[in-house]
Amino acid sequence: MNNILIIGAGRSATACIKYVLEKAAERNWFVTVADADPKLAEAKVAGHPNGRGTWLDVMKVNDRRELIGRTDVVVSLLPAHLHLEVAHDCIKLKKHLITASYVSQEMHRLADVARSQELIFMGEMGLDPGIDHMSAMQQINAIKAKGGKITAFRSYTGGLVAPESDDNPWHYKITWNPRNVVLAGQGTAQYLENGKHKYIPYNRLFKEYRLIDIPGMGKFEAYANRDSLLYREAYGLAGIPNILRGTLRYRGFCDAWNALVKIGLTDGAYPIMGSEDMTYHEMLEGYLGPSFANGSVKERIATFVKQGVDSEVIQKLDWLGLFSKKKIRLKDATPALILEQLLLDKWKLNPQDKDMIIMQHEFEYELGREKRQQISTLVMKGEDSENTAMSKLVGLPLGIFAKQVMGGHIVKAGVNIPVMPEVYEPVLNELKEYGVIFKDEEKAL
Amino acid sequence: MNNILIIGAGRSATACIKYVLEKAAERNWFVTVADADPKLAEAKVAGHPNGRGTWLDVMKVNDRRELIGRTDVVVSLLPAHLHLEVAHDCIKLKKHLITASYVSQEMHRLADVARSQELIFMGEMGLDPGIDHMSAMQQINAIKAKGGKITAFRSYTGGLVAPESDDNPWHYKITWNPRNVVLAGQGTAQYLENGKHKYIPYNRLFKEYRLIDIPGMGKFEAYANRDSLLYREAYGLAGIPNILRGTLRYRGFCDAWNALVKIGLTDGAYPIMGSEDMTYHEMLEGYLGPSFANGSVKERIATFVKQGVDSEVIQKLDWLGLFSKKKIRLKDATPALILEQLLLDKWKLNPQDKDMIIMQHEFEYELGREKRQQISTLVMKGEDSENTAMSKLVGLPLGIFAKQVMGGHIVKAGVNIPVMPEVYEPVLNELKEYGVIFKDEEKAL
Repeated sequence: MNNILIIGAGRSATACIKYVLEKAAERNWFVTVADADPKLAEAKVAGHPNGRGTWLDVMKVNDRRELIGRTDVVVSLLPAHLHLEVAHDCIKLKKHLITASYVSQEMHRLADVARSQELIFMGEMGLDPGIDHMSAMQQINAIKAKGGKITAFRSYTGGLVAPESDDNPWHYKITWNPRNVVLAGQGTAQYLENGKHKYIPYNRLFKEYRLIDIPGMGKFEAYANRDSLLYREAYGLAGIPNILRGTLRYRGFCDAWNALVKIGLTDGAYPIMGSEDMTYHEMLEGYLGPSFANGSVKERIATFVKQGVDSEVIQKLDWLGLFSKKKIRLKDATPALILEQLLLDKWKLNPQDKDMIIMQHEFEYELGREKRQQISTLVMKGEDSENTAMSKLVGLPLGIFAKQVMGGHIVKAGVNIPVMPEVYEPVLNELKEYGVIFKDEEKAL
Repeated sequence: MNNILIIGAGRSATACIKYVLEKAAERNWFVTVADADPKLAEAKVAGHPNGRGTWLDVMKVNDRRELIGRTDVVVSLLPAHLHLEVAHDCIKLKKHLITASYVSQEMHRLADVARSQELIFMGEMGLDPGIDHMSAMQQINAIKAKGGKITAFRSYTGGLVAPESDDNPWHYKITWNPRNVVLAGQGTAQYLENGKHKYIPYNRLFKEYRLIDIPGMGKFEAYANRDSLLYREAYGLAGIPNILRGTLRYRGFCDAWNALVKIGLTDGAYPIMGSEDMTYHEMLEGYLGPSFANGSVKERIATFVKQGVDSEVIQKLDWLGLFSKKKIRLKDATPALILEQLLLDKWKLNPQDKDMIIMQHEFEYELGREKRQQISTLVMKGEDSENTAMSKLVGLPLGIFAKQVMGGHIVKAGVNIPVMPEVYEPVLNELKEYGVIFKDEEKAL
């Protein structure tokens, strides 16, 4: 095998492309980077002799199949809903496929045919999902190997701005899909606590956060992810009484975001008719019921969300421009889209800004009669707005795993996620060279 | 024209089938009633010489086309998402189509081709939507005809249980689609007040209800419907500063339903894994966060929803069985589905129960220098659980309009809703014979 195709050349692909091109020179691979924007693809290849950037409209079946037909391994960094088309091509043309996205039910249905054709379809090989699976599984297997019985597993991840680049009252900037930032948490979160099922519906998800101590970094807020029970079986933790996956934010974020939820500004299902001619101020006034009739819109919103008008929450809303008399200028947009447009501007990563990823696993386990706790923490900062920690931690696992597949070291065919030692050990090992190192703390409880 | 096809023989079809069969005898029509359950279709035809009941799996294209091909007018009482298939057949086979469902965007796209083939595709010809459009338009046109300028239009409808059959603490029974009862109001409601856009997101829709006086019936709670602005243009009310559509419930309903929303029990997007082995009590406990740790689940839920443990709200929840230790017995069901199953049992219309429809339009208008208010109210009770007011008010407009089309009295081709006098006048007139009479009150403001 000596041809590799990377579909997608956006920000999340930067580190993956760089890594694969480096390895290509050593191993005599040829790397094709395809994107709807061929200039972007070419810029990412940057004249490397082992690569080329090319144009691809992924909806054009023939073009897509021609590119895939000429390769051995496909790395897809497309939006999740587009993977399936590529997957069908890979089945047809007998190619391996690697993605960083959640494996959908439709993708799972390809498991038998992929296995029978000895094709490797690896999903969730990025950061979250990806490094979270791999690092957790390594620890889980190590605790089990020494005879430990795991009674609690809690895992938190945050895609944040580094403290030195944090210059806004929300202490947050956008380092991934902005739409997902706005819609995060919609639905009902579920997890297990002392053997009992726990549910948090969206309307109080950002109210019921917990404070998590990150060694060396201080305390962060964590709100529960949608389905913490999803990976219980895959992780070999069936029957565990405590399991929780959460998202980390700097302190003060959740209370302010909760105000946006309460007002109704994160609703992406419903257009506000005539929003283009409306001001943000008018829109907010529209959300105030008759019981909040006195004072300025800012004062009435403060009363409504049960905060002082000078509170940090209201200051954050004000800083976003939600009380401004500027026009929205988006035609019949949903509240979520209107908010997203505001945040894209206000929470923009400036060119020199560094992002920061924090991932922390907490395990509680019994070893004989002893109760022990282990905490594994990864903190990694990016270099600037192009070379983000997010891009590295999504792209490097993809690249490293692609190298394993290209080298013929992986034999696990079928549709999988990286929970098997033969998959995660080489990836985690090589990630260490790039500074992806979890620090472990262990103590008796 | 002498063949009419009614697709769907469920409860909402009863009055329509009965009406059409009556008219068939006088006019020598032949009526085919088709349903997935042929016994039900036959039972509704009840041996009438001008009709027959037959089996139809609406997804079987050939069977469906054969039936439609042999008819002149199709009345479809299918669930809304199935109308489109029938509509395409009607285009192909050149047949008129009448439904009681909201006209979807896909259906609207058939407008040109229907018009060019002189086909009548009438949607929203039931109760709500249906009678609401027709009765409002009649009043709007009457006020305009005498020179009035309408400044406010508020319209409320409730599908309720009649007071004499009201024997539960919620004062509510299910007379229509139970799934829609549970999911009602999800999204953001929008309306106009004093020329300003107003929004109420779902998380406070049942908190911000208003009290509406129904002459002769007392006060009812009304919560806002999703998009009150939708029919502004169709009603000829563009530029009106006040418009609101709302749903009526007996007093006490909204506070208790709001508790269900707040707990998170109306979420239909997310399964509760392992729900089959869980009790209602355990499920409710799962929704209690760490800040509600003391006391029984009932006491903690009471604290959480800010109600006394003996309050009416908690009594209503208790009466539903939400604190019971019975098993849920639904596999991996969403909270909404679990709630729906409970309500189907607890809010069941008993055989002799009467339902009740209330519809009230409020108009404010200026006549010269005078400000006036007009209130038009319809109150109608059913006979029993089979012959409901709901079934009559959905089915009679369909039947009456079908008669008009069969008689060649309607020439308005294309995809329409009943807002034109030539459509609503004959239907409203004939509805009076069935007791569908709005009482009007008018006064100076």
